[in-house]
Amino acid sequence: MNIAMIRYILGKVTMIVGVIMLIPCICSVWYREKEGIVYIITSLSLILFGFLISMLKPKNTTIYLKEGLVATSLSWIFMSIFGAIPLCLTGEIPGFIDALFESVSGFTTTGASILSDVEALSHTSLMWRSTTHLIGGMGVLVFLLAVIPTKGGSQVNLMKAESPGPTVGKLVPKLRQTAKILYLIYIGLVVLEIIFLLCGGYTLFESVNTAFATAGTGGFGIKNDSLGSFSLYGKWVVAVFMLLFGVNFNFYYFIIMRQFRKGFEMSEVRVYLAIIAVSTTIIAINIRHLYESLGLTITDSFFQVLTVMTTTGFSTTDFDLWPTTSKLIMFLLMFCGACAGSTGGGIKVSRFIIIIKTLKKEMNSLLHPKNIKKIQSDGKTIDHDTVRSVNVYFVAFTVIFVISSLIVSFEGYNLTTTLSAVTATINNIGPGFDAVGPTCNFGGFNILSKLVFVFDMLAGRLEIFPLLILFHPLLYKNIYASAKNDYIEPIRSK
Amino acid sequence: MNIAMIRYILGKVTMIVGVIMLIPCICSVWYREKEGIVYIITSLSLILFGFLISMLKPKNTTIYLKEGLVATSLSWIFMSIFGAIPLCLTGEIPGFIDALFESVSGFTTTGASILSDVEALSHTSLMWRSTTHLIGGMGVLVFLLAVIPTKGGSQVNLMKAESPGPTVGKLVPKLRQTAKILYLIYIGLVVLEIIFLLCGGYTLFESVNTAFATAGTGGFGIKNDSLGSFSLYGKWVVAVFMLLFGVNFNFYYFIIMRQFRKGFEMSEVRVYLAIIAVSTTIIAINIRHLYESLGLTITDSFFQVLTVMTTTGFSTTDFDLWPTTSKLIMFLLMFCGACAGSTGGGIKVSRFIIIIKTLKKEMNSLLHPKNIKKIQSDGKTIDHDTVRSVNVYFVAFTVIFVISSLIVSFEGYNLTTTLSAVTATINNIGPGFDAVGPTCNFGGFNILSKLVFVFDMLAGRLEIFPLLILFHPLLYKNIYASAKNDYIEPIRSK
Repeated sequence: MNIAMIRYILGKVTMIVGVIMLIPCICSVWYREKEGIVYIITSLSLILFGFLISMLKPKNTTIYLKEGLVATSLSWIFMSIFGAIPLCLTGEIPGFIDALFESVSGFTTTGASILSDVEALSHTSLMWRSTTHLIGGMGVLVFLLAVIPTKGGSQVNLMKAESPGPTVGKLVPKLRQTAKILYLIYIGLVVLEIIFLLCGGYTLFESVNTAFATAGTGGFGIKNDSLGSFSLYGKWVVAVFMLLFGVNFNFYYFIIMRQFRKGFEMSEVRVYLAIIAVSTTIIAINIRHLYESLGLTITDSFFQVLTVMTTTGFSTTDFDLWPTTSKLIMFLLMFCGACAGSTGGGIKVSRFIIIIKTLKKEMNSLLHPKNIKKIQSDGKTIDHDTVRSVNVYFVAFTVIFVISSLIVSFEGYNLTTTLSAVTATINNIGPGFDAVGPTCNFGGFNILSKLVFVFDMLAGRLEIFPLLILFHPLLYKNIYASAKNDYIEPIRSK
Repeated sequence: MNIAMIRYILGKVTMIVGVIMLIPCICSVWYREKEGIVYIITSLSLILFGFLISMLKPKNTTIYLKEGLVATSLSWIFMSIFGAIPLCLTGEIPGFIDALFESVSGFTTTGASILSDVEALSHTSLMWRSTTHLIGGMGVLVFLLAVIPTKGGSQVNLMKAESPGPTVGKLVPKLRQTAKILYLIYIGLVVLEIIFLLCGGYTLFESVNTAFATAGTGGFGIKNDSLGSFSLYGKWVVAVFMLLFGVNFNFYYFIIMRQFRKGFEMSEVRVYLAIIAVSTTIIAINIRHLYESLGLTITDSFFQVLTVMTTTGFSTTDFDLWPTTSKLIMFLLMFCGACAGSTGGGIKVSRFIIIIKTLKKEMNSLLHPKNIKKIQSDGKTIDHDTVRSVNVYFVAFTVIFVISSLIVSFEGYNLTTTLSAVTATINNIGPGFDAVGPTCNFGGFNILSKLVFVFDMLAGRLEIFPLLILFHPLLYKNIYASAKNDYIEPIRSK
């Protein structure tokens, strides 16, 4: 285990969080809010602290898969704790566990909140909440790879551990370039959304916050009614951008490279769009009688399908009041999630494509046992390891889901609330049904349940394994053995 | 495709159903009920009809996997229709779809009913309902294998298709012997339960019906309150026998053969017992405040855990009124199911053991990519095909679950009712929550939903693939090609 390299990465991540915390600081200067002082102090401390622990560059910079997983999960745990500090110190969220919940919800782009009145927050803290969405969406380690020169190919293991989806594709041979391209597309889309919102008459503060929250498919709003008071134009802009941020970013790369055919042949993107179209249509028919005009019906069904499928979690209406078929579709979309390689959470469309293909293959092999073809996707054979890891992912997901639900159930909320709260956090959506519905919040749960949700949000964002591995006894044997070699033995031999 | 052999099997199955229908006929003579005439006529017609179509024995008696699957699913569909005929003709269940629902619910040992007043049924029809549980529990094809001499080893494919669980083990080299042993153990346990119930002061009619319904882990009661009015002794007898019928029957074989160590080392049985113990304890603690004495608390929690886990579905209390933790555990147990190779339904404990082992293996391989061990169970390596088929089973299960829920949701029952109705039928349990809770029935659903439930009950009992294969286009190509070879071409060449 390359402990020195993990320390180095954690230091850099700490510095990045510190630097990014300067964004709300700028905001505080603009609005002359005293909360800014807390943010500036925290920011500078983090930069200094990060600088100190990453000063010594390790000789061996190789990162194997296990180091990638451990570095990723520890980075996210550190980020979450750092992110909670200013929220807590300004006194706006007095309890540390509450502040941690809010910070994790931000970084993991869940968007679930423990606050009943977000409008009471300072502009600075609102900006910080939105910024956590921005950085959490694309990932801090991908950012690290984009800004820091890396040598050797092993750093791809960091990206593998942090990026959503069953496989990770390098767009170009050089990892740093790939990370840069991803962030450029990402920032480009964010800027575009800000411009569109400004054109709709929203203030710069509203536009930037909404764009950041859309970009990460996060869902923190700056109003108590989320986007309920947005105009029709505003709702459509946000809905379209949710759709765009839920698309696999490889698609945009192909489009930019003018490889249109390659882009439009991506089966995941096509299935993703098909699910959106079908769900919107069924829900629109199902809720038509609740609305005055067809236009409003389609706006709300399209918006809600996207907010749940991309796991953003903005709300414009209380879908908890919809008929059963629509509610069921929303519930299913919560698990479906967006495309792999997007900023959306959930299980991901590509995983479903793979498992449906295994089902087809199995049915064929029952009829023709000797004629077994390999599973193909977009012209490439899906190797056995990917299929297996997808299957195991579902198992791990289910296990965590069940255990979390059991712990949360001790609180005595009803079944719908309990199950949908876990669903909404593990899939990084935000709102669920009933007591955690679009008009409610997570403030009422006790500390144990909140910690479970914190774990679930991190597990959902990191796709379980990086986090789960921290609980594996073998890991500590490994660390102990390495520490003995690297630190204890050299000291002894002196 | 060996169509002649499938025809032959279907003929024999029809005869068996006819013969078994003589059991309620005997009951009708005893109680001098006129409904008996319908049963006797149906029974004799089935025997004659079955005799005619199975008169011509096929030359080639080989049954490949696909013939096994098709013969099994068609047998079950035929059985269900035949079973519905007398219920419908006596006028006790006037609608044919309702009668079909009741018949399928009986044979698949689900125990869900569309009747609000079962006490209004004749003794004859009550007896027939219980008898369908008895034959459905162990399986009609296994019965066929036990009573009819078979040559060649290929008949094991019939058993594979009908027997629950991821793998099927022959107890002894000869298949017929295996089938006989299984049925002997089965009948032995049934007789034992009847004796125990008679000792408790129950009438012969009550004892036989209750024992039949327990044996198949079915759950049809002969009273409107199911077993609510049973004495403490009666409840414990039934609970213990539910536990016994949920155990993998290989266990009993080992015990009879005095291979005690082999029996008690079966990990599935141990996990099964552990789940029962843990669930009963947690629920007992959770519901303690609702009861006067600890004894009653434990009786109800033990009984309800077993009724749901073994997918029997008897009820002694309305668990819909329990606290959330208990309800959630009940909900999870609905999916868990009993042991493979038992009469219980659900997903089966052994499947969960296998998938949890794949999860462990995957975690190890993340830390030690080169050191991958094969998955073991009870000292045997679980081959890759079994693991894959278990994974695909989960996929197929989920797909059917989702589609069924969507169709049923059109009726507008709430989410809990919709989801738990599908859960209760696909897992062959019987009662669910809310409008299909222990004190309610399935009578209120429309025909479309009832047909969905019929499909789900059959899919659950046959573990999906035999039924799913009937919808595979390749099958019909196969059948057409065989029919052309066997029937059309010979006629032409005449």
